Amino acid sequence: MNSANRQWRLASYPDGMPAEDNWAMSEGPIPEAGPDAVLVKAIYLDVAPYMRGRISPQQNYTAGVSPGDVMVGGAIGQVVDSNADDYPVGQLVVTGNFGWQEYAVLKPKTMRKVEAEIAPLPCWFDFMGTNGVTAYFGLVEVGSMKAGDTVVISAAAGSVGQIAGQIAKLSGCRVIAITSSEKKLARCRQIGYDDGINYRTEPDLSAAIARVCPDGVDVYFDNTAGPIHDAVMQNLATFARIIVCGTVSLADRFEQPDIGERFLRRVLVSRARIQGFISGDFQHRHQEGWSRLADWYGQGKLKCEYDIVEGITNMPSAFMRLLTSQNLGKQLVQVSPPPV
Amino acid sequence: MNSANRQWRLASYPDGMPAEDNWAMSEGPIPEAGPDAVLVKAIYLDVAPYMRGRISPQQNYTAGVSPGDVMVGGAIGQVVDSNADDYPVGQLVVTGNFGWQEYAVLKPKTMRKVEAEIAPLPCWFDFMGTNGVTAYFGLVEVGSMKAGDTVVISAAAGSVGQIAGQIAKLSGCRVIAITSSEKKLARCRQIGYDDGINYRTEPDLSAAIARVCPDGVDVYFDNTAGPIHDAVMQNLATFARIIVCGTVSLADRFEQPDIGERFLRRVLVSRARIQGFISGDFQHRHQEGWSRLADWYGQGKLKCEYDIVEGITNMPSAFMRLLTSQNLGKQLVQVSPPPV
Repeated sequence: MNSANRQWRLASYPDGMPAEDNWAMSEGPIPEAGPDAVLVKAIYLDVAPYMRGRISPQQNYTAGVSPGDVMVGGAIGQVVDSNADDYPVGQLVVTGNFGWQEYAVLKPKTMRKVEAEIAPLPCWFDFMGTNGVTAYFGLVEVGSMKAGDTVVISAAAGSVGQIAGQIAKLSGCRVIAITSSEKKLARCRQIGYDDGINYRTEPDLSAAIARVCPDGVDVYFDNTAGPIHDAVMQNLATFARIIVCGTVSLADRFEQPDIGERFLRRVLVSRARIQGFISGDFQHRHQEGWSRLADWYGQGKLKCEYDIVEGITNMPSAFMRLLTSQNLGKQLVQVSPPPV
Repeated sequence: MNSANRQWRLASYPDGMPAEDNWAMSEGPIPEAGPDAVLVKAIYLDVAPYMRGRISPQQNYTAGVSPGDVMVGGAIGQVVDSNADDYPVGQLVVTGNFGWQEYAVLKPKTMRKVEAEIAPLPCWFDFMGTNGVTAYFGLVEVGSMKAGDTVVISAAAGSVGQIAGQIAKLSGCRVIAITSSEKKLARCRQIGYDDGINYRTEPDLSAAIARVCPDGVDVYFDNTAGPIHDAVMQNLATFARIIVCGTVSLADRFEQPDIGERFLRRVLVSRARIQGFISGDFQHRHQEGWSRLADWYGQGKLKCEYDIVEGITNMPSAFMRLLTSQNLGKQLVQVSPPPV
């Protein structure tokens, strides 16, 4: 065990696209597990698109990170000291409230046990974590997805998108990926998407969507906002549902108004429904979602894809790798060796 | 009885705001009631915002009017010749499919009987007609309105708005009018709105909404789109619902893209729901809506406001009166004397 706890703290709010020097690494003492709490050593740290929203001075759905604070984020780790009976030393856990650091003290109610026999550790950031229930309740509840729907997913190879694509396919839908490279498109086809569009090489994205969705788009799982959203909005089927899950295309202009074409007339004509949500809105039903996803995984029907960067020193660069679409599957950072 | 049927036909698609010369009046023969049909003489003809969408070459939720066609619209009238047992001569009826003309032949399934003992004739274009069920199902079903909500209504004194405002108030909500004159605001207060904003004289509409809705807007009944929509979107409460019922502010730029600020990030942060609808989406439940509205009216709780222009020659000018917000309450045109 190191004698110090390496931590990434926010140095400044990004002006547009974040850069490495928006964070600074420091070392602090390893904290002690207090009463009814445990000390957890991180194995994997999470990097995810929602983090962009936390380092903006703008209003968000939860409190943001101020300069000087340890950067927020989840972790998969192992209990190394325990004052909580239910979480003995050696217990593997996953939490959304860890921070970009090597060690943290956690209370039982802020973590879940990881059961490695259900799925490998990284999958607990994927379908067995927030991303899984985000994709599941987004499609099923917010999107009212039903068999036979044409479902379009942006950031289709991303952490939520790849799960959403598989859920939609397993639910009897025709599923279209929109993503940023041929490599990602190939990956999407491997995991079950019926067809796909590389928006970076498509001269007319709206026409491309019309071509692959000749009867219009019934459900759009929107992880991006921006030009992809605009192109899908021009191709809605009647009673289309647009699930607003993320706005990563706005990541480099978060403090500026998003100016462009609005589609209220189309929303009316198509009787469309646009709805924003976060997975926490369905917290009381998360276990139901994870059970369904674990069943599919256990039956070999659901694939879990991840992209591992090594070393806590690479947290900011792994985050930017994600924001610039270089990752394939769920992006995470390994900060200590997993148990064998 | 005249020997001719005066009719307004579309002469050309408007370029922006419609003008009188987009229509031309002609005379045709009075048609004969065919088998299982009746000849109806109009008493009141309807003018309504939806008609703007029908005289555009753009896609809409129903087929449009082509130049040369009789302009579409509803009527309240009286059967003057009948080959349908259930609709004898003298029966008062209301229909959405009449056209801007003095006489039309109707099949029973395209009309409803008017019961003057429930409410005066003009009210059958108002709460006892499409406007009533539009306001009712828009708020109750699309908007998931519940007691205690802060409800903002644009075009608040208009044909749908004035009914929506009263329904929201009767349902235990705090109801805010947004309208275009002090005169309309006064009318809104008379019919039960708690507060209101004249958007034409308000230098900062978003700030004005924030002032009258300090806890944010739970339900926005959007009849306008445009700058009023934008200002409300900046004041959403968490889990806000935006009911997209009309887009009348776009009436003079219907063929151009609507460019401006988009609010997907706010939709996500607020977990807002934006949904377009037309009353026909709830056709199977219209009777339920009308029964509720008739109950309120019978108890003296619901007011029915209308604005009558005289003479079929004034149809285009009455329509433009509506599009330029000069009407107070439901706009209609009297084309023959009502029965005493």
